[in-house]
Amino acid sequence: MSISSRTTAGPRDAGRPSALSGPNATASASVAARASTRTLETVRDGRGHVTSQVRRTVLPSGLRIVTEQMAGARSASIGVWVGVGSRDETAATHGASHFLEHVLFKGTSERSALDISIALDAVGGEFNAFTAKEYTCFHARVLGEDLRLAVDVLGDMLTDSLVADHDVDAERDVILDEIAMHDDDPDDVVQNLLADLAWGSGPLGRPIAGTVESIQAMTRDRINRFYKKHYVPENMVVSVAGAVEHADVVRTIKKAFGRNGFLDGQAEPRSPRGAVRRPRVRGGEAHVSRPFEQVNLVLGVEGLPRDDDRRFAMGVLNTALGGGTSSRLFQEVREHRGLAYSVYSFAANYADSGLVGVAVGCLPERLDEVLATVRAELALIATEGITAEELSRGKGQLTGGLVLGLEDSGSRMMRLGKAELVHSEVLGIDEVTARIDAVTLDEVRDVAREVFSRPELLAVVGPE
Amino acid sequence: MSISSRTTAGPRDAGRPSALSGPNATASASVAARASTRTLETVRDGRGHVTSQVRRTVLPSGLRIVTEQMAGARSASIGVWVGVGSRDETAATHGASHFLEHVLFKGTSERSALDISIALDAVGGEFNAFTAKEYTCFHARVLGEDLRLAVDVLGDMLTDSLVADHDVDAERDVILDEIAMHDDDPDDVVQNLLADLAWGSGPLGRPIAGTVESIQAMTRDRINRFYKKHYVPENMVVSVAGAVEHADVVRTIKKAFGRNGFLDGQAEPRSPRGAVRRPRVRGGEAHVSRPFEQVNLVLGVEGLPRDDDRRFAMGVLNTALGGGTSSRLFQEVREHRGLAYSVYSFAANYADSGLVGVAVGCLPERLDEVLATVRAELALIATEGITAEELSRGKGQLTGGLVLGLEDSGSRMMRLGKAELVHSEVLGIDEVTARIDAVTLDEVRDVAREVFSRPELLAVVGPE
Repeated sequence: MSISSRTTAGPRDAGRPSALSGPNATASASVAARASTRTLETVRDGRGHVTSQVRRTVLPSGLRIVTEQMAGARSASIGVWVGVGSRDETAATHGASHFLEHVLFKGTSERSALDISIALDAVGGEFNAFTAKEYTCFHARVLGEDLRLAVDVLGDMLTDSLVADHDVDAERDVILDEIAMHDDDPDDVVQNLLADLAWGSGPLGRPIAGTVESIQAMTRDRINRFYKKHYVPENMVVSVAGAVEHADVVRTIKKAFGRNGFLDGQAEPRSPRGAVRRPRVRGGEAHVSRPFEQVNLVLGVEGLPRDDDRRFAMGVLNTALGGGTSSRLFQEVREHRGLAYSVYSFAANYADSGLVGVAVGCLPERLDEVLATVRAELALIATEGITAEELSRGKGQLTGGLVLGLEDSGSRMMRLGKAELVHSEVLGIDEVTARIDAVTLDEVRDVAREVFSRPELLAVVGPE
Repeated sequence: MSISSRTTAGPRDAGRPSALSGPNATASASVAARASTRTLETVRDGRGHVTSQVRRTVLPSGLRIVTEQMAGARSASIGVWVGVGSRDETAATHGASHFLEHVLFKGTSERSALDISIALDAVGGEFNAFTAKEYTCFHARVLGEDLRLAVDVLGDMLTDSLVADHDVDAERDVILDEIAMHDDDPDDVVQNLLADLAWGSGPLGRPIAGTVESIQAMTRDRINRFYKKHYVPENMVVSVAGAVEHADVVRTIKKAFGRNGFLDGQAEPRSPRGAVRRPRVRGGEAHVSRPFEQVNLVLGVEGLPRDDDRRFAMGVLNTALGGGTSSRLFQEVREHRGLAYSVYSFAANYADSGLVGVAVGCLPERLDEVLATVRAELALIATEGITAEELSRGKGQLTGGLVLGLEDSGSRMMRLGKAELVHSEVLGIDEVTARIDAVTLDEVRDVAREVFSRPELLAVVGPE
């Protein structure tokens, strides 16, 4: 965010519908004293040359390794995915997943925090991490020849972090500042409000970073117990894509993660988080008064859980509703009425629940007209569904965007890691494309009718 | 920005130093009744196969076309760069560049606004634009086979927009909302304040989007005159990268931009904006009181103009100071003292001026300690320069980041278009790398000493 790249964004800022990935089926992994390896997908170009190949190895410890070798790539991206996030926390550990994510950068018995930073900075690599409600991911992007270095640093951090008392205290201050930063971001505030409205104080409803109170009360021991409990091989997936060779990656990972006997045990990879008990979503409305210039609002309803078959129809519906500049909401709210700069719809999925909604930022005096316009569009699409032209356009947009979105090693690493962790299997691009192509007008209308007849959730943040 | 990708950012968020590109020299283009074409750069892999080739054609009308054919790419990115931005505005046209950028999406004699949106949405393409202080860029990313479509839409929009009265009025409301959105973003507010402090009410000091007053007063005629004056072939560069073939691209552009005689004249491409009169930067301090949770501040000094030979030394200096997580500022402000989540330095260049600075967001009670810490680091680096280890690491970081940052068609298109427009020539990656490698400790110390002894600029936004 340097000034030199400072620009005013143009008018094409509508949200892109979330990528569709992952199958319904869950595949159970083999359990054996020896690693098992399978080839999941091979893509060839017109002349029969292999352009990409996805392979998967399960180590006896339960650690899963998924790689995609991409012909011609110079970079390599690696992600370590851990099946733990804010929904695994209790009131007493609220914010622990994210706190831990920070603390793991602070040093191991081999490396100081500065050593960790220097290692990837020195080769121009990108190195970061994020915490979500259902998983935590540590990722790096480097030139292919520097992959071993990145694997070594990540393996060290994830298996042997010290979680030292004084580091916990220093990061506590950093996280309190991060929470203040999110509190100054209207999008963050309104999305947290929506989650709270939908799921209350239950695990899905709480903000990922925790609260000022929960972070102030967090202890080193609580974080360390959380670390030891959740950061185990059977709860982790390593995904690597780009200029990589599978067998070589597996060898490097075994060495980097094998420190201190971390991979010595035997276990089956943990199954994806199931839909044990579907959280109830009641309707409701919440306003938070903040002295912003704009009002930010999200109008939503309960959506679909992740493995629901109808998610492909929902993807097409979401695209037609608010997934691009030709979408109904963009056309009506922005192009025709000039009511808002930013308007888009979204469909979010979790293991056992989901949200579908529309997000708008507008001037306070336009709030009533925005709400009336959005509600009218939702009512219309719930009754009549979409047109044949919108169906065909939505499919083109989703499949074209899928291919365009998977050109770099980073996005392929993300696709592999997330799919393996939350679905236990990586669905090929062809299969996803076929599922999108198979969506019918009736399916879109049925899912629109069902979903948009659910009780309305409305979160609003802005001046009085 | 859908909820499904909603995560809390991890600890590795420091700013990346801006990419270095472009030479000092300016090359004058040939003027002829026939197009002239040159090959600027050819890169081969270890086996001698061409992996990328940069070619440049100048049409008799003065329109420049620069392409980079990338072996193995599936996508193609196109950018149309116009040498006009907010610094070309007067008080009466303040905000016209950005306003025009919006209005060009609203329809031509061939296409409605909806037609324009549908065209690229239907193939899953990305389509956007941005306005900066010195240029405006319209860009798209599509699959290679859809490039002709993208070129055709862009050529139509840029040469034949209607700039209709009612579209100007509808976009006026959208832009007023966009200004409100920026006013809610602490980073935007503090950077605008810094520019104002540095260059006052002069062209470089004004916010790109205009003000509420200037946008309310803007007329259709003023915008249209601005359009006809600045959107001329000799002031435009089209850059295309990815799955493209140069001669084919040139043919397609000639057709798409040749509408209504747009390319019929003869002209020499306009020279890059020169350093006519260097704007004076005095020191100073400005505070804006806003009810945010955080204080956002930028501490800066006047930097280097774009073609200054010392910009490579400045790049290394900026990297060591605040360009990564191993940088001095990140280590001291965040890792050791836990004062802030986000801290980074930046170096911005314009034709005749520049800014170098440090940006921090922190809790209000930590402001004094943050300021003291940042000032101490600046004083130290101004006196002693950097260490040999920092020099070597900084070079690795810049060159590694350069290669990693140019893997996709979008970033290559951006590099080509910007370099051609602001430097009149595209410097090869090898040449940029060589310039970085040649930087010495003395050069870094000298530029640090000179720049950081200039009068201090301090912009602060936050609660009282």
